[in-house]
Amino acid sequence: MTDVLQARSPGSDSRRRTRGAPREGEIRRPDYRNLVNPFLPQGIFSDAQISDMHHTSLRVLEELGILVLLPEARELFRRGGALVDEGTQMVRLGRDIVAEALAACPREILARGGSTARDVSLRLGALNFTPGAGAPNVTDIERGRRPGTLADLEDLIRLAQTFDVIHMQGPHVEPQDIEHRFRHYAVNRAQLTLSDKVPFIYARGTPQVLDGFEMVRLARGLTQEQFRAGVHCYTVINTNSPRQLDIPMAQGIIDFARWGQVSIITPFCLAGAMAPITVAGALTLQHAEALAGITLAQLAQRGAPVVYGSFSSNVDMKSGAPAFGTPEHVKATLGAGQLARFLGLPWRAGGGSAANTSDAQAASETQFGLWAAVLAGSTVLIHSAGWLEGGLCDSFEKFVTDVETLQTIAELCVQTPGDADAIGFDAIAEVPPGGHFFAAQHTMARYRTAFYAPLVADWSNFGAWSDAGSRTATQRARDVWKKKVASFEPPSGSAAIGEVLDSFIADRRAHGGAAPES
Amino acid sequence: MTDVLQARSPGSDSRRRTRGAPREGEIRRPDYRNLVNPFLPQGIFSDAQISDMHHTSLRVLEELGILVLLPEARELFRRGGALVDEGTQMVRLGRDIVAEALAACPREILARGGSTARDVSLRLGALNFTPGAGAPNVTDIERGRRPGTLADLEDLIRLAQTFDVIHMQGPHVEPQDIEHRFRHYAVNRAQLTLSDKVPFIYARGTPQVLDGFEMVRLARGLTQEQFRAGVHCYTVINTNSPRQLDIPMAQGIIDFARWGQVSIITPFCLAGAMAPITVAGALTLQHAEALAGITLAQLAQRGAPVVYGSFSSNVDMKSGAPAFGTPEHVKATLGAGQLARFLGLPWRAGGGSAANTSDAQAASETQFGLWAAVLAGSTVLIHSAGWLEGGLCDSFEKFVTDVETLQTIAELCVQTPGDADAIGFDAIAEVPPGGHFFAAQHTMARYRTAFYAPLVADWSNFGAWSDAGSRTATQRARDVWKKKVASFEPPSGSAAIGEVLDSFIADRRAHGGAAPES
Repeated sequence: MTDVLQARSPGSDSRRRTRGAPREGEIRRPDYRNLVNPFLPQGIFSDAQISDMHHTSLRVLEELGILVLLPEARELFRRGGALVDEGTQMVRLGRDIVAEALAACPREILARGGSTARDVSLRLGALNFTPGAGAPNVTDIERGRRPGTLADLEDLIRLAQTFDVIHMQGPHVEPQDIEHRFRHYAVNRAQLTLSDKVPFIYARGTPQVLDGFEMVRLARGLTQEQFRAGVHCYTVINTNSPRQLDIPMAQGIIDFARWGQVSIITPFCLAGAMAPITVAGALTLQHAEALAGITLAQLAQRGAPVVYGSFSSNVDMKSGAPAFGTPEHVKATLGAGQLARFLGLPWRAGGGSAANTSDAQAASETQFGLWAAVLAGSTVLIHSAGWLEGGLCDSFEKFVTDVETLQTIAELCVQTPGDADAIGFDAIAEVPPGGHFFAAQHTMARYRTAFYAPLVADWSNFGAWSDAGSRTATQRARDVWKKKVASFEPPSGSAAIGEVLDSFIADRRAHGGAAPES
Repeated sequence: MTDVLQARSPGSDSRRRTRGAPREGEIRRPDYRNLVNPFLPQGIFSDAQISDMHHTSLRVLEELGILVLLPEARELFRRGGALVDEGTQMVRLGRDIVAEALAACPREILARGGSTARDVSLRLGALNFTPGAGAPNVTDIERGRRPGTLADLEDLIRLAQTFDVIHMQGPHVEPQDIEHRFRHYAVNRAQLTLSDKVPFIYARGTPQVLDGFEMVRLARGLTQEQFRAGVHCYTVINTNSPRQLDIPMAQGIIDFARWGQVSIITPFCLAGAMAPITVAGALTLQHAEALAGITLAQLAQRGAPVVYGSFSSNVDMKSGAPAFGTPEHVKATLGAGQLARFLGLPWRAGGGSAANTSDAQAASETQFGLWAAVLAGSTVLIHSAGWLEGGLCDSFEKFVTDVETLQTIAELCVQTPGDADAIGFDAIAEVPPGGHFFAAQHTMARYRTAFYAPLVADWSNFGAWSDAGSRTATQRARDVWKKKVASFEPPSGSAAIGEVLDSFIADRRAHGGAAPES
C-alpha cells in the first residue's frame, strides 16, 4: 500500500468528526511580530570568492567609477576625497573612503512605528516583510486590471495593517487619479491615518521628501529634534544600473541621511540586461553600486541609517523580459546574503513574480523568492505580498495568498516544543494499536491551539469542496480581503492625526504642492 | 522610486529586442540526474531532544510494543529475541535487538535502472524525486476528475520517464479498469516497457510481489542470482499507525528483504489523528514504528536494503482532514531529517497538497513540502509531482507545474561559477554607465545557455499574455504534457521487453493471476 491508501484506512472512521468551533479566548494567536530567522544562512560562493567579488567592486569604483548626476552629491564625494570629473560627472571612489563609510554604518536600526508594538528592528538575523511596492496597476478578480487609484492604495494599506506578518507599510500601488504635485500627500496621509506601521516615503526630490518627513513628524507628535533622533520612516533607493546614480536617488540618499531616516539602497541588477549575465558578475556590479550609495549617505551624515540592498535576478534572453523566482534569482539572493554578512550590515532582498495572473506560476515564483530571502538571511523582504507582472501590477487576491505563505514562514520561527511532555510517551501509551488520538488527554489539552489555522487554504474533501462551488484559492482570497477591508478599524488616534495632516496638506496645496523631481 | 519603476527606466529600450531561437547544439542541457543536495541540513530540535525522542521510541517498542498481524513476522521477531504474546499478537522489542538491526542496515543503496544512466544512489546527501503515487483518481482540465485507468497510468509513466528530474518511477494512479488479480501485471508492465527508471512494486501479498520481482528480472535480463545480488525495484511500506503492522505490509518487508530489494518503511503519522498532536510526539511514534519495520527487515535478511521513512503531517482538528505543506508538516519533516541523520540512514520525505485543484494553494503547499524535504536533507522525496487532495487524485497539469519547481531546485544543485571570469570586471568595464549588457562580449559568449529555460512559466508582458489568450500556468501545462505524451518514445529495447513480459503474463493469467492480500 502507498501512503495515500494507507492514510485512508485506520483513521478514516474518526476522520470527519466535528469538534465545533474553538471557544472564546481559546483561539490561537501566534505572535508574528519581531521574527527571528530560525534557519542557518545558506551560501553559494566560497568565502574567497565573496572576498574577490567585494574587492572587484572596490576596483570598479576606484578605476571605472560611477556616473553621479546630482552636483551636490559629486561635491560631497569630492570633499570626501573621491576623484570627480565635472565634465563627465564621473566619480571615482578610493577603497579607503568606502572602508571609512562602512565603518560608520549602524549594524542595528530601530525603526519606530506609531506604537512600540509596531517598532521594527533592522539587523542581521531579524526577518521582516513589506508588501509589494509601487505598482502602476492594480487587479482583483471582480474589477479586473486597471491603473491604481487612491481608493485601491487605501484598501491595500488597510490589508497590510491588518496582518501582523507584514511588518512595515509600503506604497503598494501608484494612485494615478491624484495629480503628481499632490500625490505624495495622499500616499503619506493614507499610510499615517490607516496604519501605525513604519511608513514608506518616496524619494522624488527634496520638497516631497521634506513634506513627507513633516507629515510623519506631525502624525507621531514629535518635535523636529525627536524626529531626527530616531528612525520613523524608510525609502528605497534604486541606482540606475549600470554605474549610475540619478538626481532624485542621490538627493534621496542625502536627505534621508541628514534627517536620520533609513535609505534601503538597492541596485536593481538584472543579469544579462543592466548587469553582467553571470550571477557573480551581477552581484559584483550590485555590490559596487550599493557601496557607492552607502558611502554617499555616510558622507552626507556620518552614522546615517542605511540598509544594504539586493534585488538581482535575470531576464529572458530571448525577449529581455525580467524574471523572478528563477534559479538565478534564488542564487543571486543567496550570494547577496553572503556579501551583506561580509559587510555585517542589515540588508533587503526582493520577491515577487513575473506571472500575469495569480496562478500556480505566481505562487511558485513568489515562494522561491521568499525561501531565497529566508535562507539568505535577509533582514527585510520587499514585495513579499501581492506583486504580479514583475511589479507592474498588484493583486488583492495574491496579497492574501502571499500572506498565507508569509504566515507559514512565521510559524517556522516559533520554537517547537521537544520536552518530555511534547514527546508524550504517556499519550502514545494511552492509545491502543490501530486506535486514534482524537480523544486522548494529550490531544484534548492542545487541539484548539496546536496547529496553524489557514487563512485561505481549503482542506475539505473534493465532494465538500465541489458542493461549495469548486472555488480556487484566488476566489476564496477575494472573500478574505473584502471581509478584512469591510471590518477594518483604523488604529486609535487616527482621526486626530487626520485632522493635523489635513490642515498641513491644505496649506501646502494652497502653495501649489510639490512636483516630483527627476 | 521603487524597484519596479526603476526597473522600467534604463533597460526598457533594450528590453524587448529579440535574439532569435538558440542554434542547434547550443541549447542548455543541464544534468538533473544524481543530484547532490547543496544545502546545509536544518533542524528544529536540539541534539538532546532528538536523542530523547529516539530513546522514548525504544521505550515504546520495549514497554508498549507493536501489534503484528502476520504470524511469520511474529515468529521472526520471537527468534530475534523479542517478547511475543500470540494471544494479543503484541510484539515487545528490546533496544539491543533494534541496535543490532540498525548496525546491519546499509548506509548507501545503489538502485539499478534499465541503464546505468538511470541508476539511483540512495544515501544521505543525495537528492531524488519520485512522482505522486497511488491516487485512486486522476484529473486533467479537459476530461475532469475520474477514477484512474491503465491509459492514465501509462501516460503518467511516460511523463515521469520524460523528465530527468524525476528519478524513479511510481504507481501514479490506480488503474481501476483492470481486475484486481491482474492489475499488478499491467502496472509493472507499463513501468518496465515505457520507462527504464527504477520501478515501484506494490507490497500486496507474496504472490503479487514475486510476480513483480520476476517481471523486473525478465525485463532486465537477469538471472535470479543477479537479481538478488542487486537492487532493481522498490516499494513503500506503511505501518498502520499507531503501533500496528498489518499482514501485507509485514509480508512485504520480509519478501523485499529476502530478495534484496528496497523497502521504504514509512509510518504515516498524522498528528492529532493517528499520532500525538505534537510534532515531537508524532515523530516519536513514527520513529518507533519505522524502527520496528527496519528491525523486521534485518531479522528476515541481515543487511537488507531499507530506507527510513517519514511522512508526518497534521490534520484539521475541526474536520479531521489531513493537511500538507503546513508549518507542522515542514517542522515534522525537518525533525525527521534529524532522526534519520541520528541513525545515519538514507530516508524519504513526503510532499503534496490537500488542495482540490491545481491552484495557488496547491502550488504553495507543494513547494513548502519540497523545501522541507530539501532542507531536511531527505534522500528521496515521494509524491513530488502531481499530488492533489492529499493523494486522492493525481493531476496531469500539476505534474508539469510541479516538475518546474523540481527543476528549479535541481538548478540550485549546480555549482555557480565565482571565478574572475564569472565576476567579469572586464564586462563591467565594457559597458558605459546607463548602458546595457545585451551586446557585451561576456553576454554574447553565454546568453544561449546562461539561464534556466522555463517549462511552463510565462514571462511575457500583460499585453502579449492577454493577446495569447490570458492562459494560466495550469492551462499552459496541459499543452506541455500533451506534447510530451504525443512525442514520447519508449526506451530502446522496450518492444522486446514487452514480448517477454507478455508471455509471462499470459501464463500467469492462465493460472488465474494473483489477488491482492489484506
